[in-house]
Amino acid sequence: MGWNTWNHFGCSIDEDLILSAAKAMIQYDLPSYGYNYVNMDDCWHAATRNASGAPQPDPTKFPNGIKALSDQIHSMGLKFGIYSDAGTMTCGGHFGSLGYEEIDAQTYAEWGVDYLKYDNCFNQGLSGTPKLSYDRYNNMSVALNNTGRPILYSMCNWGEDGPWNFASTIANSWRISGDVYDNYDRWDVRCPCDSFIDCKLAGFHCAMTRIIDFAAPLGQKAGPGHWNDLDMLEVGNGGMTYDEYVTHFSMWALLKSPLILGNDVTNMTNETLSIITNDAIIAVNQDSAGSPATRQWKRSVSEGGYLELWSGSLVNSQFIIALMNTSPTNQTVTVSFEDVFIDQGAAYQTGTFTLTDLWQKDDQGNWGKEVGTYTAQIPNVEIG
Amino acid sequence: MGWNTWNHFGCSIDEDLILSAAKAMIQYDLPSYGYNYVNMDDCWHAATRNASGAPQPDPTKFPNGIKALSDQIHSMGLKFGIYSDAGTMTCGGHFGSLGYEEIDAQTYAEWGVDYLKYDNCFNQGLSGTPKLSYDRYNNMSVALNNTGRPILYSMCNWGEDGPWNFASTIANSWRISGDVYDNYDRWDVRCPCDSFIDCKLAGFHCAMTRIIDFAAPLGQKAGPGHWNDLDMLEVGNGGMTYDEYVTHFSMWALLKSPLILGNDVTNMTNETLSIITNDAIIAVNQDSAGSPATRQWKRSVSEGGYLELWSGSLVNSQFIIALMNTSPTNQTVTVSFEDVFIDQGAAYQTGTFTLTDLWQKDDQGNWGKEVGTYTAQIPNVEIG
Amino acid sequence: MGWNTWNHFGCSIDEDLILSAAKAMIQYDLPSYGYNYVNMDDCWHAATRNASGAPQPDPTKFPNGIKALSDQIHSMGLKFGIYSDAGTMTCGGHFGSLGYEEIDAQTYAEWGVDYLKYDNCFNQGLSGTPKLSYDRYNNMSVALNNTGRPILYSMCNWGEDGPWNFASTIANSWRISGDVYDNYDRWDVRCPCDSFIDCKLAGFHCAMTRIIDFAAPLGQKAGPGHWNDLDMLEVGNGGMTYDEYVTHFSMWALLKSPLILGNDVTNMTNETLSIITNDAIIAVNQDSAGSPATRQWKRSVSEGGYLELWSGSLVNSQFIIALMNTSPTNQTVTVSFEDVFIDQGAAYQTGTFTLTDLWQKDDQGNWGKEVGTYTAQIPNVEIG
Amino acid sequence: MGWNTWNHFGCSIDEDLILSAAKAMIQYDLPSYGYNYVNMDDCWHAATRNASGAPQPDPTKFPNGIKALSDQIHSMGLKFGIYSDAGTMTCGGHFGSLGYEEIDAQTYAEWGVDYLKYDNCFNQGLSGTPKLSYDRYNNMSVALNNTGRPILYSMCNWGEDGPWNFASTIANSWRISGDVYDNYDRWDVRCPCDSFIDCKLAGFHCAMTRIIDFAAPLGQKAGPGHWNDLDMLEVGNGGMTYDEYVTHFSMWALLKSPLILGNDVTNMTNETLSIITNDAIIAVNQDSAGSPATRQWKRSVSEGGYLELWSGSLVNSQFIIALMNTSPTNQTVTVSFEDVFIDQGAAYQTGTFTLTDLWQKDDQGNWGKEVGTYTAQIPNVEIG
Repeated sequence: MGWNTWNHFGCSIDEDLILSAAKAMIQYDLPSYGYNYVNMDDCWHAATRNASGAPQPDPTKFPNGIKALSDQIHSMGLKFGIYSDAGTMTCGGHFGSLGYEEIDAQTYAEWGVDYLKYDNCFNQGLSGTPKLSYDRYNNMSVALNNTGRPILYSMCNWGEDGPWNFASTIANSWRISGDVYDNYDRWDVRCPCDSFIDCKLAGFHCAMTRIIDFAAPLGQKAGPGHWNDLDMLEVGNGGMTYDEYVTHFSMWALLKSPLILGNDVTNMTNETLSIITNDAIIAVNQDSAGSPATRQWKRSVSEGGYLELWSGSLVNSQFIIALMNTSPTNQTVTVSFEDVFIDQGAAYQTGTFTLTDLWQKDDQGNWGKEVGTYTAQIPNVEIG
Repeated sequence: MGWNTWNHFGCSIDEDLILSAAKAMIQYDLPSYGYNYVNMDDCWHAATRNASGAPQPDPTKFPNGIKALSDQIHSMGLKFGIYSDAGTMTCGGHFGSLGYEEIDAQTYAEWGVDYLKYDNCFNQGLSGTPKLSYDRYNNMSVALNNTGRPILYSMCNWGEDGPWNFASTIANSWRISGDVYDNYDRWDVRCPCDSFIDCKLAGFHCAMTRIIDFAAPLGQKAGPGHWNDLDMLEVGNGGMTYDEYVTHFSMWALLKSPLILGNDVTNMTNETLSIITNDAIIAVNQDSAGSPATRQWKRSVSEGGYLELWSGSLVNSQFIIALMNTSPTNQTVTVSFEDVFIDQGAAYQTGTFTLTDLWQKDDQGNWGKEVGTYTAQIPNVEIG
Repeated sequence: MGWNTWNHFGCSIDEDLILSAAKAMIQYDLPSYGYNYVNMDDCWHAATRNASGAPQPDPTKFPNGIKALSDQIHSMGLKFGIYSDAGTMTCGGHFGSLGYEEIDAQTYAEWGVDYLKYDNCFNQGLSGTPKLSYDRYNNMSVALNNTGRPILYSMCNWGEDGPWNFASTIANSWRISGDVYDNYDRWDVRCPCDSFIDCKLAGFHCAMTRIIDFAAPLGQKAGPGHWNDLDMLEVGNGGMTYDEYVTHFSMWALLKSPLILGNDVTNMTNETLSIITNDAIIAVNQDSAGSPATRQWKRSVSEGGYLELWSGSLVNSQFIIALMNTSPTNQTVTVSFEDVFIDQGAAYQTGTFTLTDLWQKDDQGNWGKEVGTYTAQIPNVEIG
Repeated sequence: MGWNTWNHFGCSIDEDLILSAAKAMIQYDLPSYGYNYVNMDDCWHAATRNASGAPQPDPTKFPNGIKALSDQIHSMGLKFGIYSDAGTMTCGGHFGSLGYEEIDAQTYAEWGVDYLKYDNCFNQGLSGTPKLSYDRYNNMSVALNNTGRPILYSMCNWGEDGPWNFASTIANSWRISGDVYDNYDRWDVRCPCDSFIDCKLAGFHCAMTRIIDFAAPLGQKAGPGHWNDLDMLEVGNGGMTYDEYVTHFSMWALLKSPLILGNDVTNMTNETLSIITNDAIIAVNQDSAGSPATRQWKRSVSEGGYLELWSGSLVNSQFIIALMNTSPTNQTVTVSFEDVFIDQGAAYQTGTFTLTDLWQKDDQGNWGKEVGTYTAQIPNVEIG
């Protein structure tokens, strides 16, 4: 959990912007919710590496260097993340780390880096089989481990060659698709694959609910220490309604995606703040069982779009249930425990459970309100 | 044929449990039906290999070691199977055999192992082309042969890269899909491929009849000594009805899948026992011609689901015919010999045959009752 | 053009059978039509190679050895073909040539072999990328060239990895699909791919018209000296009607597939003989331009099946037009020259042409009867 | 921008033809519009390389050699392009450059070559993974760079293995599909792939609008110095109507494809000339932002075919909007700024813009006429 510069600021970043964001995170008490990482994405680079071949930052944007920035962030009790690319150039056209894994990892460690997002542009054809992608990303994994500093390794190869199959032993998370954009469910030709199981053009401009679709078969591959990354959050960037952002945040949480804020944290509405600080939802995301929810069914709606039921198990015999609606109208659905508890078996399917709505607040003003006790089904749920 | 710990007990195994199962197999006379292998699946492992790099069992679960367990099983006239993985870890997170093929095979031989199930988790990207999968699985094949001990080699790479194309010279059987689950025909998003001819995410939670679907084009690749493995049986685990388990057992048999029980053999209903001891069906499975049946047609039913006709040839001019129904209602169908004998030609298609129903008992109480003589067709068969 | 043992006799071959076939070919004057090759398919092998590692025949089936057989066939003015496999075993389980390319090619040359059909079974995972398939098949190509004897090289890798893309510089022809079977258009689950552009399970039991479907996009890749091989002919084997065999022979001819008889040439009906000796059709096949016809359209028919228009160009400003019907009923269609001459342009599309029906005989009893002169279209053609 | 021999003349080229074309380009003032390259495609070759292994031209077609031709073209102020192939032979069967990259690049540089189109035939199976294609094409890239002469490198591997993913660091442009042909939207079996994201048979005879379809998801991969090449233009070759060629030229322009004329420039109608000299459209193509337009939607039309909306951004806060219609009838559509400005956000989507029709001329006779000011939408546009 943390924050990243890219979704809102793209290449327009500098020391001030990052420090302002870090301060805002403190001011809004975000670390107490778990948002600890301050991640600097692409475009921090100087035009070239230094004479020794080591990476160096843009001297205008980062006049005090990265180490100074990192120190300040650490002094606030936060962690610091950086970005590079497993190719000759980053996606933004700056120097990449392919062939420079050792010196780059060493430099990051010297700078006090705690997190590396490692992208996939300009990889010189070193993809197309799991072996090629594994080897390329493993080189940085080994280099990071060689530094002796714990650095969270966030692979960003856009689901190419199935990282869910090969990356769990070398990385902490892996992106599963092309980049999200701030939109609920619009299909965009730049995110052309219907599934990411064998997608050959990850692209970008993937609508939020499409990424949920992509993630549905992949939950089985994630677990503690090795996660599917559904991409950074768009909550607060303005392209979706409150209900849509609630869906976005909830689904990212129950699919156990890293929760990395992508908005301008120095300038948030109350609505945005209330969504990202729903600690009941965050608890689902951080549940120690680390088991992503599963889509139990997906039904087409006659008006267009789909209605979906998701469920999953948490620690302490608790379970999570979610309905998602991409149709243009409200839908009413009866949730059968036969579907919810497909993995738990007959006793659960006919059992009685107390239901807590994580998007209502209880009498004490805390997220999560008990809304009744149900046996075998929850009848007539309305989902907007 | 045999029994395996996984489907019913998962990781909760130890010496007592396995010996109890072996004793129950003797008590129920299962070896006389052909069930000879007692196979210990994942989670028998200690936390690490021993100081020499050799595998060693969990000292709590197996206080007497594996050799002692194997000896006891052999003393009952049964054979003993073990489990490992062609990766750095087993699917359950224990040490894998990748890079340790020789020492592991030698150790298994010393332990008196007769069967190896060899899984596919954490394979470091060594898949994606038949060559990579072949090389990785061949390393263990060579190592097993080097021991001099006959050890049945059961590849479990979930159909990746088409083992039916490359494994017949190195293994005795190969899994064709993700793991079965104890369900007749429910579609589950965790088993997302519609076909396994080029599936890139094998997954698990594949319903029983979906695996039959996956197997349909692959029967041509199996034969004596090299079999398609449809995964271990779920008969008796409670998720299907009697008729559904009858279908399960019958179809596994006529597709010549290994028949490995996956239930708790110490606690079986009479129904379960009667299914798994239908020696007429077992004879079809063990028929020396070793020729899997072929699906001759698959027709959609207006109420949903499908009706399928399968047929195949046995030794001694006998043939097997099966109908399968995944629709929600009973179906009536006339079986044409033109379809049944597509491979045998015109003389058979117009011929006269005596029909034996392998799921009825004759006057002596033996499975298999003659139910009439038919020419060119069997009219109006009802299939539930 | 020639004859091959497999389609009719499978593994039941010996010297007598092959010599009888060769004599029948002479008796029926087939060489004068172009049928020159007598090809011995799988199962000619002894149990093992000889002590030097060279191939040797089954001593019972071929008591005089292969050289003697080859000599006799040459003495009849015919050429002699043999079969092997780019794997460890042939499809029938005999020794393969993988790793023995040089000694096998040398031996074939010593035996006077003129043609090699080179199969794809048991290839140890050496497929899955064009490079792997190319290298494996190129090894034999080089070995054949090293013998100094001209040996026609007929690749049989079932279209795997797209031989039309990589084989034209190393082979004379390449199979494009799984094995044909003697059936007009029945779909069989053992030939599961809808297209062979990227088929991962070639299989067999591919109906005749399905192979035409597979060939449709591939005609562009063939030309003099490098041909798409649609597999050996089934004409005369009994599974199709006269009209269906006429379609079979015609389409193989205009797609420029090698015409290798697959029936029992010692026992042919007059109908069979008349089809395979239609020298007008054979002339289309052997036309020196070597340009396969193209499918100009394929239209679904309401009763089921399809109607297709094919056209192509021959030398001397002649063109070939074919209609194919896989629907259950007769169809009437107007053939537009806009479609026929899509490659030739406007002048041809409005031009006037004299039409010869190659399946009618003229007044002198020769195949090919003029049936009229047409401008811009041929109206109301009936196709059964 | 320039002209190429292939689309109109194929293999029938010689020095006179190319010089005549160059002179016609000067006569029609085409260089002032940006058409600077005179590109000689396949079939300029002698039967073999010279004794040193260097390429040499056909002495009959090019009696003065290539250097002399190049000099004459340079003396007209034009640039000179040549063609070769990353295989053992060119598509036309002449010597290829595979294994001869250094000597060929050096020779081209000596000849004064400014542009290389590098084809993909007969590549010996060196494709099928991005790595294999990258390595093969990179060999020529390195060789060209080693010459010290700036030579534009135009990859023509027909989209195999996704050059948009791997070629931007080694080439200036890459073909994305099989060859175009001079037809608006006819489906042809020789261009069988529905998408080029993972096409295994590029083929040829791809209709013009099908190539636009192929290009739609790929625009995101192009930018200054690395372009998607939709293939050479067919404008003026006679297979399309005026409106269709207008669509062709417009869409190539806004997708930022290289504009390489493929007609006979010595013999052009006024219509043809007016299309290719629409400098407003050319300005869109050459816009320095280098950002290809995106297809915002594609809607099927009940009469058949599709209606599409494309939009993109240019420098100076200008935008391009295009509608394309492949249905058989005129269509009326309201263009919503919500769709046009999906990337620019809410302020643009409700904004007011002045519209210029680039295919009408203004009062001064210049291409581009203001046709009104619109807010939020352009209602009722008719598209033929």
